[in-house]
Amino acid sequence: MNTFGHLFRLTTFGESHGAAVGGVIDGCPAGIGIDLDFIQSQLDRRRPGQSRITTARKEGDRVELLSGVFEGKTTGHPIGFIVRNENQHSSDYDNLREVFRPSHADYTYYNKYGLRDHRGGGRSSARETISRVVGGAIAMLCLRQMGVGIKAWTQQVGAIACNRDWTQLDLSLIDSNPVRCPDPDIAHAMEQLILEVKGEGDTIGGVIAGVITGCPVGLGEPVFGKLHAQLGAAMLSINAVKGFEYGEGFAGVSQRGSEQNDVLEPGATSPVFRSNHSGGIQGGISNGQPIPFRVAFKPVATLLRPQETIDIHGQATTIHPRGRHDPCVLPRAVPVVEAMAAMVVLDAYLADRARKNEKA
Amino acid sequence: MNTFGHLFRLTTFGESHGAAVGGVIDGCPAGIGIDLDFIQSQLDRRRPGQSRITTARKEGDRVELLSGVFEGKTTGHPIGFIVRNENQHSSDYDNLREVFRPSHADYTYYNKYGLRDHRGGGRSSARETISRVVGGAIAMLCLRQMGVGIKAWTQQVGAIACNRDWTQLDLSLIDSNPVRCPDPDIAHAMEQLILEVKGEGDTIGGVIAGVITGCPVGLGEPVFGKLHAQLGAAMLSINAVKGFEYGEGFAGVSQRGSEQNDVLEPGATSPVFRSNHSGGIQGGISNGQPIPFRVAFKPVATLLRPQETIDIHGQATTIHPRGRHDPCVLPRAVPVVEAMAAMVVLDAYLADRARKNEKA
Amino acid sequence: MNTFGHLFRLTTFGESHGAAVGGVIDGCPAGIGIDLDFIQSQLDRRRPGQSRITTARKEGDRVELLSGVFEGKTTGHPIGFIVRNENQHSSDYDNLREVFRPSHADYTYYNKYGLRDHRGGGRSSARETISRVVGGAIAMLCLRQMGVGIKAWTQQVGAIACNRDWTQLDLSLIDSNPVRCPDPDIAHAMEQLILEVKGEGDTIGGVIAGVITGCPVGLGEPVFGKLHAQLGAAMLSINAVKGFEYGEGFAGVSQRGSEQNDVLEPGATSPVFRSNHSGGIQGGISNGQPIPFRVAFKPVATLLRPQETIDIHGQATTIHPRGRHDPCVLPRAVPVVEAMAAMVVLDAYLADRARKNEKA
Amino acid sequence: MNTFGHLFRLTTFGESHGAAVGGVIDGCPAGIGIDLDFIQSQLDRRRPGQSRITTARKEGDRVELLSGVFEGKTTGHPIGFIVRNENQHSSDYDNLREVFRPSHADYTYYNKYGLRDHRGGGRSSARETISRVVGGAIAMLCLRQMGVGIKAWTQQVGAIACNRDWTQLDLSLIDSNPVRCPDPDIAHAMEQLILEVKGEGDTIGGVIAGVITGCPVGLGEPVFGKLHAQLGAAMLSINAVKGFEYGEGFAGVSQRGSEQNDVLEPGATSPVFRSNHSGGIQGGISNGQPIPFRVAFKPVATLLRPQETIDIHGQATTIHPRGRHDPCVLPRAVPVVEAMAAMVVLDAYLADRARKNEKA
Repeated sequence: MNTFGHLFRLTTFGESHGAAVGGVIDGCPAGIGIDLDFIQSQLDRRRPGQSRITTARKEGDRVELLSGVFEGKTTGHPIGFIVRNENQHSSDYDNLREVFRPSHADYTYYNKYGLRDHRGGGRSSARETISRVVGGAIAMLCLRQMGVGIKAWTQQVGAIACNRDWTQLDLSLIDSNPVRCPDPDIAHAMEQLILEVKGEGDTIGGVIAGVITGCPVGLGEPVFGKLHAQLGAAMLSINAVKGFEYGEGFAGVSQRGSEQNDVLEPGATSPVFRSNHSGGIQGGISNGQPIPFRVAFKPVATLLRPQETIDIHGQATTIHPRGRHDPCVLPRAVPVVEAMAAMVVLDAYLADRARKNEKA
Repeated sequence: MNTFGHLFRLTTFGESHGAAVGGVIDGCPAGIGIDLDFIQSQLDRRRPGQSRITTARKEGDRVELLSGVFEGKTTGHPIGFIVRNENQHSSDYDNLREVFRPSHADYTYYNKYGLRDHRGGGRSSARETISRVVGGAIAMLCLRQMGVGIKAWTQQVGAIACNRDWTQLDLSLIDSNPVRCPDPDIAHAMEQLILEVKGEGDTIGGVIAGVITGCPVGLGEPVFGKLHAQLGAAMLSINAVKGFEYGEGFAGVSQRGSEQNDVLEPGATSPVFRSNHSGGIQGGISNGQPIPFRVAFKPVATLLRPQETIDIHGQATTIHPRGRHDPCVLPRAVPVVEAMAAMVVLDAYLADRARKNEKA
Repeated sequence: MNTFGHLFRLTTFGESHGAAVGGVIDGCPAGIGIDLDFIQSQLDRRRPGQSRITTARKEGDRVELLSGVFEGKTTGHPIGFIVRNENQHSSDYDNLREVFRPSHADYTYYNKYGLRDHRGGGRSSARETISRVVGGAIAMLCLRQMGVGIKAWTQQVGAIACNRDWTQLDLSLIDSNPVRCPDPDIAHAMEQLILEVKGEGDTIGGVIAGVITGCPVGLGEPVFGKLHAQLGAAMLSINAVKGFEYGEGFAGVSQRGSEQNDVLEPGATSPVFRSNHSGGIQGGISNGQPIPFRVAFKPVATLLRPQETIDIHGQATTIHPRGRHDPCVLPRAVPVVEAMAAMVVLDAYLADRARKNEKA
Repeated sequence: MNTFGHLFRLTTFGESHGAAVGGVIDGCPAGIGIDLDFIQSQLDRRRPGQSRITTARKEGDRVELLSGVFEGKTTGHPIGFIVRNENQHSSDYDNLREVFRPSHADYTYYNKYGLRDHRGGGRSSARETISRVVGGAIAMLCLRQMGVGIKAWTQQVGAIACNRDWTQLDLSLIDSNPVRCPDPDIAHAMEQLILEVKGEGDTIGGVIAGVITGCPVGLGEPVFGKLHAQLGAAMLSINAVKGFEYGEGFAGVSQRGSEQNDVLEPGATSPVFRSNHSGGIQGGISNGQPIPFRVAFKPVATLLRPQETIDIHGQATTIHPRGRHDPCVLPRAVPVVEAMAAMVVLDAYLADRARKNEKA
């Protein structure tokens, strides 16, 4: 199942060490101006080798749009695109041909499919998220027309967290540091932790927070297409994600209804909520308030230290990984989280518009 | 979007105060023995009025299967079913016809659809979950053939939590108390808290934990149909859910890869994992280990105390709710969580089997 | 696969001799006035026992809407409905329990599912089309707002055909005779043929023609969702249908492009086509002209005469059918054809609206 | 809607004069040997410039598989592929930038999307079928394992038809002539007719017949996924198709049930049908017999002679088409018909296997 979305749909393909990754965006409205620089800038935020806390692999990750755009605008037809793979050191993986790396997809892929492309994780590689970033960037270009904004940032690395409410943060600072945390001091501490972990050949997890602003009232389709259910599915489909929450999330379970209810009061032009404990969604439908959410990433499984495991014959062995890997995926995952959020919101927008009864 | 699943599909309908709720189960394999008592027993666990900590509404919630079963077995054709609504006090809701209850779906439904059935929440009522329980019970009857077991329980109410690992709990005790917590002492404390909250006309949230056991290796479809992404979407579609996590979840983000990796070693008949930090899923595919997960429920929005709000004309007003409501939804939501998990696993099982290349 | 449509979706259930047939309509826009008399009138046109050329079975076929309608209007939520089965003579079918009737679904169902509900054809019975008529009637109520009209009629029975172009017919006469052919003389000849065939215990096929008028420009989704591809799939899913064509259809293959091209010329308010060989669809998208189509029905397989066959043990046997059956399904299939066409057009309308870029 | 299929899914992209056409095949079982020469041979049968009765455009149409294949076998992951466009004479279309060609998709595309890529028909070009041929060829490689064969041929061009039953034809002769008709004499007459039409700057329609052999019993999903409904939708989605029929089709409507019923009798190893009027499908499910079908193609709209029309401003004008076009699309459409049939059968096979209850 390599297609995401219902009306705005992204289908992706590609392995880490194949010829290319890419995809097809179907259902994009016609007439949207395509800003290639913006798309590329999101890819650049995801690109490896951008700082000393990411993998040293150098990949240009230049996207080529193959269809669906004519004279700078979308035509309403599918947008095919590819990003050629380059700078692959496939021989780095020769020793892993018959070995299951701990906590990777190696064992499950091999059992499910009966064979696997062992090079760089094959299809299970996070390189697949390139296609998501392209799809998400084009969704963002559509959403701009509606005034919807989407921002994500690194909120926590290991135990170092930036716990202030997002309304207290200056989100313009997200890209001011390689960690992509809007609090420069905390960012610095996070960076030190990542370098420390990297020095140990280890990895570390964290939390990416995000917020959707300017979302119109009415997005989300009861009962199974609740906006947050679609958002959760989107985030949980990203490599290494272990949890999703929105609004008050897990912490809010200790509260009482009287604390969490968001009271409506008359406003100048439209009703005003006194609070946003609901996280911008009520009954699965956006209520016009910002939608804050959090996504938990486990530490990546690839360690730069020897690990015990077994091979495909069931024999015990030890792996000595080579290759170039991220000690912490969060900085590069920020644009991926934004991309998935954008596609969910746009898809929900199209679904809502489809069934609007303008004459009722 | 009132259909859930891809190959095993549940479509639901029905409002709280309409004639009936019900649904259609499509894609159920043929030849499955239908144990009506089991289906009804799951409905009875969800039924209101079962204890002093749930709403006092009395509803029989008897399911009638209308099709798809012949001489006690499924025929492979759609199973239509209805549960008639009864004991509705629609007049309890007359005062809410033009009022938006705080943190309910009232405001969003009204804005999305331009009108709403205000009686008992209409379609946004958790009464809709009856249909999920029926679908899930039939999925469970299929899964039994494969040796898959699914259990859920109340892990936390307010701040009172049962934090021991599920392997340390006696899950046969889940239904030994009205809270559905397998630790009787903690269950007692939870029950006291719920009664206290109820006495204040307030409500309280909590966490339901679950575990899927006996799941074969290979379920889940990369990249967007990862097993946990489907599981998360399922849980997040349940009323009042604000978060989902599996494996080490949010807590695990502070760990290092070297702590969290699950090492494989040779076993008697098949490989053995030394640990299960991954939560039974790697690369989005089940690895044969148990799949533990957690679902966060907010306190329900319906309070038995006056609340400020506005009406559909934008005027400030105060509501004085009547009706009979749950101070805490968790005890009754346990079978709903089980139902959703069962449908996800069965659907993933069918998808996996479809594409197996037996001759490869 | 018992769900039809993408945005306006009908899911059906029910066997001929089960408790009920019914379905769920999902995705219907909110605020549509529900005219129950109109829905029932379409069911009455499909009902058995309406004339001497249809089966003598008497069934009321009263529909009960269970949800999704509030104070006479659709709410935007799923409309569940059932039609109870009645007047079943299941014992008529006792002798068919282990026998495969020639050219029925008996052999294929038994092989596919490993068991079958043999009573009255079970799920393969055309009684299933009741649910389609309900779904189609509600779609028609939506389409009325847009000025779209849908008409079908019996164009051919056996070799007796009404070959005049639909623009030369008075479609208000369709229901003036039991055959549902708008030419009374031809209708009379058809009726005589059906009675003659009936007298022989035999059955006869025919063609239903239809036309969609008032369809706006722009419906249909390239490349796989072409409007006529959806229309064809809809018609071919009706029991006993063997062929579909639109525009000039099969006959037009002998023509040259210079004969078939539809020339556009300037019109008073919008461009005008000089001809409609295209059948109202170009490139898979409606062009605003009427959409005429034809649907071929084979003679039904149930004969009131002895037939050789085999049983489920592979032994030769002879069947002596009892029961009450139609010698020709066309008169009762007319509202089914209309229903499927209505659902296709409405679904295409919603899909088109979803992706319209109003700001482009 | 540029995705075809449910479990085996093809998503296509690309315009006639864009950078490339291509697609993604998702859901292909793992472990299928990929015979690139076979895929290319099917593309070569579709390629322009292969004979004097097709367009003189020269295009290599070499496919590049970008993913999903490892060491010659499918991995179970999506197969992305592209075919670069070349030898485009886009300037041939400069004069059509603001003109609607009669009976093309120009008018409908422009109205639906508000803009269009006018070069060579853009997305509405039959060049899009390249991607179908690639998808179909890979489906055929899967079907070979099951013994399923698919053949299509030109049965009729204009009024010249090869009406013998397919069982009386030597299908190995299909590619013995440029028309792809298995009767060499009739093929010669067809070829003369096409050349005559071409000489007049005109075009001509025809019928492609096909047959699916070796299809196992049980494929097709009642009620909306009937095998022939999926087959019909597939064929009707091909450019220029106006009709579809299978079994006795339209001609069979004049017959009686007693003539058309297929009697089953005991056979050596399994039951035997005395006839195949049903066309291999009963109740929407394959019965193990061959599945013959027919597809009607209209004459293509592009004429090499002046035609009256209007432009996007509603003004009357005359077009003088340039470019290189086919006087008759049938010879090149044969592999496209085969491709669509193959994808339908494989998809139905996967759907059937998904829900098989092996333990029932």
